[in-house]
Amino acid sequence: MSRTDISKYGEFGLIKHLTEKFKITNESTLKGVGDDAAVFDYKNKQILVTTDLLLEGVHFDLVYVPLKHLGYKSAVVNFSDIYAMNGRPKQITVSLGVSKRFSVEDLDELYAGIHLACQNYGVDLVGGDTSASMTGLTISITCIGEGEKGKIVYRNGAKENDLICVSGDLGSAYMGLQLLEREKIVFNANSEAQPDFEGKDYILQRQLKPEARKGIIEALAEKGVVPTAMMDISDGLSSELMHICSQSNTGCRIYEDKIPINYQAVVMAEELNMNIVTAALNGGEDYELLFTVPMQDYDKILTMENVGIVGHITKPDLGLNLVGREGEEIALQAQGWNSLK
Amino acid sequence: MSRTDISKYGEFGLIKHLTEKFKITNESTLKGVGDDAAVFDYKNKQILVTTDLLLEGVHFDLVYVPLKHLGYKSAVVNFSDIYAMNGRPKQITVSLGVSKRFSVEDLDELYAGIHLACQNYGVDLVGGDTSASMTGLTISITCIGEGEKGKIVYRNGAKENDLICVSGDLGSAYMGLQLLEREKIVFNANSEAQPDFEGKDYILQRQLKPEARKGIIEALAEKGVVPTAMMDISDGLSSELMHICSQSNTGCRIYEDKIPINYQAVVMAEELNMNIVTAALNGGEDYELLFTVPMQDYDKILTMENVGIVGHITKPDLGLNLVGREGEEIALQAQGWNSLK
Repeated sequence: MSRTDISKYGEFGLIKHLTEKFKITNESTLKGVGDDAAVFDYKNKQILVTTDLLLEGVHFDLVYVPLKHLGYKSAVVNFSDIYAMNGRPKQITVSLGVSKRFSVEDLDELYAGIHLACQNYGVDLVGGDTSASMTGLTISITCIGEGEKGKIVYRNGAKENDLICVSGDLGSAYMGLQLLEREKIVFNANSEAQPDFEGKDYILQRQLKPEARKGIIEALAEKGVVPTAMMDISDGLSSELMHICSQSNTGCRIYEDKIPINYQAVVMAEELNMNIVTAALNGGEDYELLFTVPMQDYDKILTMENVGIVGHITKPDLGLNLVGREGEEIALQAQGWNSLK
Repeated sequence: MSRTDISKYGEFGLIKHLTEKFKITNESTLKGVGDDAAVFDYKNKQILVTTDLLLEGVHFDLVYVPLKHLGYKSAVVNFSDIYAMNGRPKQITVSLGVSKRFSVEDLDELYAGIHLACQNYGVDLVGGDTSASMTGLTISITCIGEGEKGKIVYRNGAKENDLICVSGDLGSAYMGLQLLEREKIVFNANSEAQPDFEGKDYILQRQLKPEARKGIIEALAEKGVVPTAMMDISDGLSSELMHICSQSNTGCRIYEDKIPINYQAVVMAEELNMNIVTAALNGGEDYELLFTVPMQDYDKILTMENVGIVGHITKPDLGLNLVGREGEEIALQAQGWNSLK
């Protein structure tokens, strides 16, 4: 494979090379790459802004993450934050810090992933920059989205008796990470070893190429359901429930046997002698949606695909509890991912 | 001085600690820190977004840049990009990657600078995150601002015969950097040596604590002048003129004796045996405004404080030229700062 040194391009030449395949598709984007700032007109819509800083060795490991997947995931996790406000992502900016270890072809791969994510979710790349770094790869992404007045959903609106809903399944991304870490250790011990990924495609995909829950937001809108509180599950269900309950001043009760878990994640947990419920509660990077709806929306939620009810909101003094399979009550702990530790 | 380890706080505790002093002051800010995304309502205004990624060892050197100044400058350079669109900065997000070398007190200093900048320019801090890094300090800032429909100024609107205007003076920030680099070498050779900064306060301030040209944008609005093209001068006048002429499909002619240069910068250049005009043309980080206006605005520009006319826009086939003090014509070169090299 050819390897073109990044210094071959000037900064502006490189940005042009990397971004020229991206087309503007949203009418709200008046100006993208190429001026001091991007320009949008959101008319009567409200504006949502979220940002993420991803550092090599902390947030991703290039030993087992292909650059194209990394680009895709970096964009998608930001879209997920906009959907989690009941919004629609419309634009992103991408800034990179890259050491000499990376070639233009490497950045092409990364941008191919970002491009695919932008196409799949209808988002325009509108700016950013690229500069040298002393070590490793740094990715900074900001996503801008639109929300309708009165329909933006915060974390602080959950009410007593609201149903707690979760999309998809939990713990799979974490089990995918455990699998990759195991194979990395095997590979480091014996570089001839072939990774053993058979029957594990789902948990790998959940870790390496997660999707944001666009379909759930669209389905909620179709059914006329506006959640009372919502966020995406990036640090584990326990941690996110604590945010919603603390900001809404409520407690909650969820049921162990209602937590949605995929079969491959169960098998992987057994292989590694781990507790899959703990992984579902505290594992990161699922990017599913956690939301609460009033009881009267029960029928509408029941008919939604890929959404399950895991419990309900309670008075604050009842605390945050998990009801186990034997009926026992366990106080929820937030062991969520903390990149500072 | 006390030193609190960053790991003492969790991620959310640290963000709360760092951001609790910041108050929301703009009515367009509906939700700041604390949810999946910040929420704004810009009513009938258009939206401007710019972003900057600053890496230790590439964009700043903590040997001579105090953290409070770094915080101030990191925010202000983003405000400058919004003013350069004839806009008004309203919100910023700040994300940090910090290695163990930094204490909570260090981050307090950095945030004190960001806080001061936000206060001085009327900008709300609305989000961001903090995570561990393997090495050094990484700062990612996104600034959101508002522009009025029809009054946003791009780089591509310059027309033949337009006057080329520059605010303030050029080359001082670069000479300030040269001074700091000189004193760093002296200090490295002899750590007892005291830095010699007498009579150099202006060029130091220009390098360490630059300001964005809020006042110029306000004065243009008061006088009813809407520039035909504008950008801020972060990579040197030559490089920025090339952007405007290339995007506007024009040439330009500027005059050496019209380039605004401060006395301290001249003295510093002489001490270091450097050419101050080269520094003004190619030195970075002045954050002055470069803009073009139609000839009929000549009288209005003449009465503006801190704005000088340095030349005019020509047909594209005349190229980009500097007229020297002896009347000689020199083709402009873009040697502007390129952090990829």
